[in-house]
Amino acid sequence: MSSAKPPTGTTQGTAGSRDHEPVFLFHKGGKIEVRPTIKVRDQDSLSLAYTPGVATICEAIARDPHLAYDYTWKSNAILIVTDGTAVLGLGNIGPLAALPVMEGKSMLIKEFGGIDAVPMCLATQDTEEIIATVVRMAPAFGGIILEDISAPRCFEIETRLQGLLDIPVFHDDQHGTAVVVLAALTNAARLTGRKLGDLRAVVSGAGAAGVAITNMLLNAGIGDIVVADSKGIVARGRNDLTAVKADLANRTNKDNLRGSMNSAMAGADVFIGVSAGTVPEAVVASMAAKSIVFALANPNPEVHPDVARKTAAVIATGRSDFPNQINNVLVFPGVFRGALDVRASRITNNMKLAAAAAISAVVGDDLTADYIVPSVFDTRVAANVARAVAAAAHADGVARLR
Amino acid sequence: MSSAKPPTGTTQGTAGSRDHEPVFLFHKGGKIEVRPTIKVRDQDSLSLAYTPGVATICEAIARDPHLAYDYTWKSNAILIVTDGTAVLGLGNIGPLAALPVMEGKSMLIKEFGGIDAVPMCLATQDTEEIIATVVRMAPAFGGIILEDISAPRCFEIETRLQGLLDIPVFHDDQHGTAVVVLAALTNAARLTGRKLGDLRAVVSGAGAAGVAITNMLLNAGIGDIVVADSKGIVARGRNDLTAVKADLANRTNKDNLRGSMNSAMAGADVFIGVSAGTVPEAVVASMAAKSIVFALANPNPEVHPDVARKTAAVIATGRSDFPNQINNVLVFPGVFRGALDVRASRITNNMKLAAAAAISAVVGDDLTADYIVPSVFDTRVAANVARAVAAAAHADGVARLR
Repeated sequence: MSSAKPPTGTTQGTAGSRDHEPVFLFHKGGKIEVRPTIKVRDQDSLSLAYTPGVATICEAIARDPHLAYDYTWKSNAILIVTDGTAVLGLGNIGPLAALPVMEGKSMLIKEFGGIDAVPMCLATQDTEEIIATVVRMAPAFGGIILEDISAPRCFEIETRLQGLLDIPVFHDDQHGTAVVVLAALTNAARLTGRKLGDLRAVVSGAGAAGVAITNMLLNAGIGDIVVADSKGIVARGRNDLTAVKADLANRTNKDNLRGSMNSAMAGADVFIGVSAGTVPEAVVASMAAKSIVFALANPNPEVHPDVARKTAAVIATGRSDFPNQINNVLVFPGVFRGALDVRASRITNNMKLAAAAAISAVVGDDLTADYIVPSVFDTRVAANVARAVAAAAHADGVARLR
Repeated sequence: MSSAKPPTGTTQGTAGSRDHEPVFLFHKGGKIEVRPTIKVRDQDSLSLAYTPGVATICEAIARDPHLAYDYTWKSNAILIVTDGTAVLGLGNIGPLAALPVMEGKSMLIKEFGGIDAVPMCLATQDTEEIIATVVRMAPAFGGIILEDISAPRCFEIETRLQGLLDIPVFHDDQHGTAVVVLAALTNAARLTGRKLGDLRAVVSGAGAAGVAITNMLLNAGIGDIVVADSKGIVARGRNDLTAVKADLANRTNKDNLRGSMNSAMAGADVFIGVSAGTVPEAVVASMAAKSIVFALANPNPEVHPDVARKTAAVIATGRSDFPNQINNVLVFPGVFRGALDVRASRITNNMKLAAAAAISAVVGDDLTADYIVPSVFDTRVAANVARAVAAAAHADGVARLR
């Protein structure tokens, strides 16, 4: 019994074929598959894998649901769920058009974390329907990654789902980005001889990534953060703030600065851009000495690295063609590998902090201004992150396997 | 970049381990995985597979959704959906305990049909919630197999979902079984020198399989069918019938026989058992000459083949340890391979009839009383079924790819 390949007819003859373009040819037929891990070669193995043998496994799980972790793929399988509302920088392109990204994520988490991830592109953008649907899909999976769901809906969806499910729910656009930013900032501070507690940061953007980065840096003990959205600095007393931003205002911006983001940049130690805005050269120059600039907008950084370099000590972007790429591929494979290894019920703040520390530790003594985060192809990263996350899960009491 | 394996810790140390039992060891860690079909070895290929290259594919699909069939896995991926209400003969054991069966089905449809199938065990047994959930999950998939959902809910769920979706929705417990029964009966009739239109059949069981078999045989032109449920013959005038059974009563049982199933067996040409009942030897003996007995209850056939053999000309069971195993593994891989190959919007009656004809044709001139259906390991079956189903889809105007 051999694995049949789809007849070539499956992918022939579509009117709108764009196979002549290399990027389309690369994605032809999709990027993932579901395969058996065991072979059924004869009647005896078929009788074990399927009826009647499989009934023994079903009955055992019906009596003791925990056995599903041992005798199904649940212990190693996750869902990658999107509603297509905030896909890359493309915005609300809908669930079907988001599928190539979800398949890409599935590829990467298998390659780097050994995890089986199913892309799930939901035909609803309603918060209640998304929550209800994910809860119903959850039994056969050991974790949920939320992906490319727009703010502020993403915050409520993640929080409520984690309250309803006993498996990790992780919005990668928030926490993946936040973890790698903290890892990079930790190393940038070390390189420039400062502690996190000494730093004042400006975060441009109060969407999923901006909020999560801010929360993460606060948890890590940063000195102060000023967050700015498209209307300016998020400050106490602003009457146009969402609940999420009002909460941020209460926990950031110690001096309650008001006005434009650029005004907050004067004397700031760190800039973290996760918006589509731009930062003029003079504003970067107004920052403190040994400034740290993470211009993460893709594909166009808020300030070009060649410009920032004139005054900043350390520069990072989201791009692969400059040094110090801030890429959450460094995060999610190891975080979920560690969480699944110990059957964690959730991803705690300490698990995320441990992941950031593990990523920055890979750089070690090789630290330079052009090497504050490891390469996404550094195979030490996922293994180190997994170990650290698993240990933190045990320390936090959310691990269910020793 | 190599495919990381889960650390061994993933599957160690569970208190209730039953690894010492061979059937449990066979299912250890589950039976399927999700894997990349292309390799990302360097920054260039990462930039194509993931950001920024993937954005080109997303934008193209957003403009022309049909391109998803070419540049994602949608053209070859299906969901296998259950609510765990009617799992094998075990009854309502719930979604999680059903997962080993769904994984087994995923294995088999990949092995025999080359199709990527995701098991989906829903944490709801509510008809409306199941329908809403499947509709929301559908965008990224080219078809839906419904599995082990109890009657009569399964009929409404399938019918309404097919009305809401433009991809095939196929309840395998109904149609998979019905197709292979028709294939087997076609050959049994040929062997005994009769036509389907000459035969009177008794079907024991009016659940998913019994209803679908009856409809299929009526579509194929059988002479007459009498259906029996646990209360006796399904007849016009019975006031305890569900809507589905009342409909059956109007289309079967030409003489409107009433009473026990056993009374209907006198002079019947065919018995098809898809219930947990038993049929006494004397009742089998009361059938017409050259009788055909399909005793499909598992693991205990309604009448043991050694007993039926005393008077019946042809005998089939659901078991692999007797000749003529009626196994829907013969059906679903080829039916979905054919449907996906032409991007069929549904599975029509003619596609099912074509599948049955393709299965019976594989037996050809080798037909004997102990060989009326091919082996499940006969690799000709899925290919023949796929070709026949694709052709029927074109003939019925439900194919979307030439």
